Amino acid sequence: MSLIPLPESLVPFLESYLPAEKHNGPFVTLTYAQSLDSRIAAKVGVQTKLSHLETKTMTHYLRSKHDAILVGVNTVQADDPKLNCRYGNELRIRPVVLDPYRKWNFANSQLCKICKDGKGLAPIIIVDELVQLGESKNDEDATELNALGGEYIALPLIEKRMSNWQLIFDKLYKNGLKTIMVEGGATIINELLLNRDLVDSLIITVAPVFLGKEGVEVSPSKEVRLQNISWWSGIQDSVMCAHIL
Amino acid sequence: MSLIPLPESLVPFLESYLPAEKHNGPFVTLTYAQSLDSRIAAKVGVQTKLSHLETKTMTHYLRSKHDAILVGVNTVQADDPKLNCRYGNELRIRPVVLDPYRKWNFANSQLCKICKDGKGLAPIIIVDELVQLGESKNDEDATELNALGGEYIALPLIEKRMSNWQLIFDKLYKNGLKTIMVEGGATIINELLLNRDLVDSLIITVAPVFLGKEGVEVSPSKEVRLQNISWWSGIQDSVMCAHIL
Repeated sequence: MSLIPLPESLVPFLESYLPAEKHNGPFVTLTYAQSLDSRIAAKVGVQTKLSHLETKTMTHYLRSKHDAILVGVNTVQADDPKLNCRYGNELRIRPVVLDPYRKWNFANSQLCKICKDGKGLAPIIIVDELVQLGESKNDEDATELNALGGEYIALPLIEKRMSNWQLIFDKLYKNGLKTIMVEGGATIINELLLNRDLVDSLIITVAPVFLGKEGVEVSPSKEVRLQNISWWSGIQDSVMCAHIL
Repeated sequence: MSLIPLPESLVPFLESYLPAEKHNGPFVTLTYAQSLDSRIAAKVGVQTKLSHLETKTMTHYLRSKHDAILVGVNTVQADDPKLNCRYGNELRIRPVVLDPYRKWNFANSQLCKICKDGKGLAPIIIVDELVQLGESKNDEDATELNALGGEYIALPLIEKRMSNWQLIFDKLYKNGLKTIMVEGGATIINELLLNRDLVDSLIITVAPVFLGKEGVEVSPSKEVRLQNISWWSGIQDSVMCAHIL
C-alpha cells in the first residue's frame, strides 16, 4: 500500500531529534506507537494497527534517515513485517533482527520475499554464539540469507546478558551502520529506556485508544525521566519526541 | 499554593467537552493525569506529582465548571487532597468520596480542615448500606461531617455491584449535582472507561515520564475506542479530550 503524504509540520518538528554525527557508536533512535494505556499490541503475538496513516508515513520518513532498523524476534514472528522504507523510494535501510535463540524462520518470511523482489535489503540476524554454533536446523534460512546478501552475526549475548546492547550497537557500528532506528517490541523498548547512554532520541506515537489489560505493555522496570520534550498532534495521534534524562 | 494563569489556548480547546444540559442523569467528565506508561502514581498509596503547573490550573478550571468532584477512598487515603476549586475563587464544588466500606477517617483529613477554614464544601461520602448500619467506630467522623454540612449516603453497593455507577450517579443527580467530575483513582477510572453510557467527556493529561512497572496503572479490562478526539500540548504535557465510542 502506498503512503499518504507526510504532514508538512512534522519536518521541522522532528528535525532536532534526527540522527546527528557521533564518533563513539551509532546514533540510536527508539521509536514506537502505543495506546493511551501504553500497549503496543492488543495481545501477545497479534499485530495491532494503532497509528493513523499520517504517523505511518512518519515512520517511513524516519526510516529514510537511518542506516538500519532493529526489531526483536517476537516482533518479526507476530507481525511478519517488511522492514523496508517506502518514503522517497529509499531502499538502503538494513533490517536487523535480534534473535538470540535463532527461532525465526527467515526463508518463510515476508521480508525474505521482499528481498527476492528487490524491494528491500536482506537482514542481519543477531544470534547468540552458542546457539549459532550448535544449530543446523535452519540451513535453509542461512542459505537464503547469504544468497540475498544478509548475514548472521553471532555475539556472546547469553554470556554477557547485562551488556548486550553495548555489544550489539558496537558490532553494528563496526559493520558500518552509523544510525539505527529501534522499533520494538516491548522487551527491547523496556530495556532500552533504561539505557540512556545508548539511546539518542525517543519518538513515541500515542494513539487515542485503550487496548486494555491483556495488551503487550511498555513500562520500564523503574522510573525514566525525559528532557527536551516536544509534542505534535495530527488528525488522530499525538507524537512525543524527547531525550532520556 | 496559588495557581499559575490558565493558558489561553485551553479555553477554546476544552469548550466542546465541558458540561452540557442533560435530562436523564448527571453530565460526567472523567479526567486524570497519567505517565506515558499509563501510571497515575509511582506506587500504591504514594501521591505522585505528574502534571505541569499549567495543567494543574486546567484541573481547577474544569472543577469550576462542575457541581461535584468524585474520587475513591484509595485516592483520599493516599493523597489527602483538598478537593476544592481554586480557579476564580469558586467555592461551590461538592466533594464526593466513594468509600463503600467506610474506611476513610474524615475528621483527620486535610479536607476536613479546609471545610472548617471555609475554603471548601464538606463532602458527601458514599458508603454501602450494610456497612453504614453496622458501623459505629467513626462517630467522630459522622459528627464532624454533619456539623460541616456534609453527609453520608448509603447505597446497596455490595448487593448491586454491577450497577453501582448507575446507582451512584442517579442518587447524586437527585441530590442536585447535575455535573460531576470524576478524578480517580485507577479502579474507578478503569470501571468508568467501560461505562460509555454514563461518561460524557474524557480529558486525560499525558505527562512525558515513565513511572515504571510498579506504578498504579490505568488500563481497562478490555479495549475502549474513542471519538471526537482533540489534542492540546503545553510546556510539558499533552492533553487529550474525547468521547467514548
